[in-house]
Amino acid sequence: MSGRVAVPLPKAYLLLNHGPTVLVSSAHGDRRNVMAAAWNMALDFDPPKVAVVIDKSTLTRELVEASGEFVLNVPSRRIAALTLAVGSESGRGIDKISKVGAGSTAAAVVKAPLIDDCLAWLECRVIPEPHIQKSYDLFFGEVVAAWADPEVFANGRWHFPDAQRRSIHYQAGGNFFATGEPFDA
Amino acid sequence: MSGRVAVPLPKAYLLLNHGPTVLVSSAHGDRRNVMAAAWNMALDFDPPKVAVVIDKSTLTRELVEASGEFVLNVPSRRIAALTLAVGSESGRGIDKISKVGAGSTAAAVVKAPLIDDCLAWLECRVIPEPHIQKSYDLFFGEVVAAWADPEVFANGRWHFPDAQRRSIHYQAGGNFFATGEPFDA
Repeated sequence: MSGRVAVPLPKAYLLLNHGPTVLVSSAHGDRRNVMAAAWNMALDFDPPKVAVVIDKSTLTRELVEASGEFVLNVPSRRIAALTLAVGSESGRGIDKISKVGAGSTAAAVVKAPLIDDCLAWLECRVIPEPHIQKSYDLFFGEVVAAWADPEVFANGRWHFPDAQRRSIHYQAGGNFFATGEPFDA
Repeated sequence: MSGRVAVPLPKAYLLLNHGPTVLVSSAHGDRRNVMAAAWNMALDFDPPKVAVVIDKSTLTRELVEASGEFVLNVPSRRIAALTLAVGSESGRGIDKISKVGAGSTAAAVVKAPLIDDCLAWLECRVIPEPHIQKSYDLFFGEVVAAWADPEVFANGRWHFPDAQRRSIHYQAGGNFFATGEPFDA
């Protein structure tokens, strides 16, 4: 497991600003799950809010609606295969987190776990908008705690140290893009 | 201006799936505008829908609410400086599109213009959700036409031909990431 330090909440949006694919982890009662979500974004600065699409057919949807909580985990290229795997199969009837070999750690505020080998983590409480959840499969969350690997994100900026510890952006058909070179416009 | 061919609507989500920063163009009456938006995402496959945050203080907000239309333009690194510029100043009282030197072309279905030197364009009609617009500055759009430069996006996949014709992902403080190398997980 890599290091993890708190990100000040008004800087939490920076963890998603560049549009990485995330893992959504969830837990309720004795069940927990993780899925991949390319359709996510920051929604506000302070208090920080996020938006993420969670399909009706998923176990994650059931656990998020029951618990009112989720974590957005920003995976590294190192776990791209795992990200693809958890986006391709259902967690119903199994513990998908264990099945795919993902390590996890307890979060600080919510019950959903923090997935290991990620670069950053946003613990979220659902902001209930039942019509939007039902009509668009869209969930809003307030970020109640945020964390990042300090070797990769510090002082409000990403500094990817190597090829494997970069965020990833899902295209389609098992193909991702790594986050590329930084440049000043 | 680069080439532009129609993207089948069920593939339009692929233009945003990897999380690029977009330009939001808008028009109403004799006014038009463009702004940058890192906070955007695909929301559905078919019919394709998108979500984008448009702050209350912006002229874009006024034009989008009045016209019920907008275009999401996917800028290339070649126009990163322009993307930063239109994200930093207001279009009130000026024609920002002309002021920043952006070329533009008429769209097929909506009145908002297509910004030149972009890689892809999604023409959208607002799906009215007044409570969400007011509470979260969030707009939903149905994609009614989609276009891409065929040298960069074809057959449902991005193939970035060179360093300047890549999509970009805004970090902060004038710093972007280029979309990086593709890989299969």
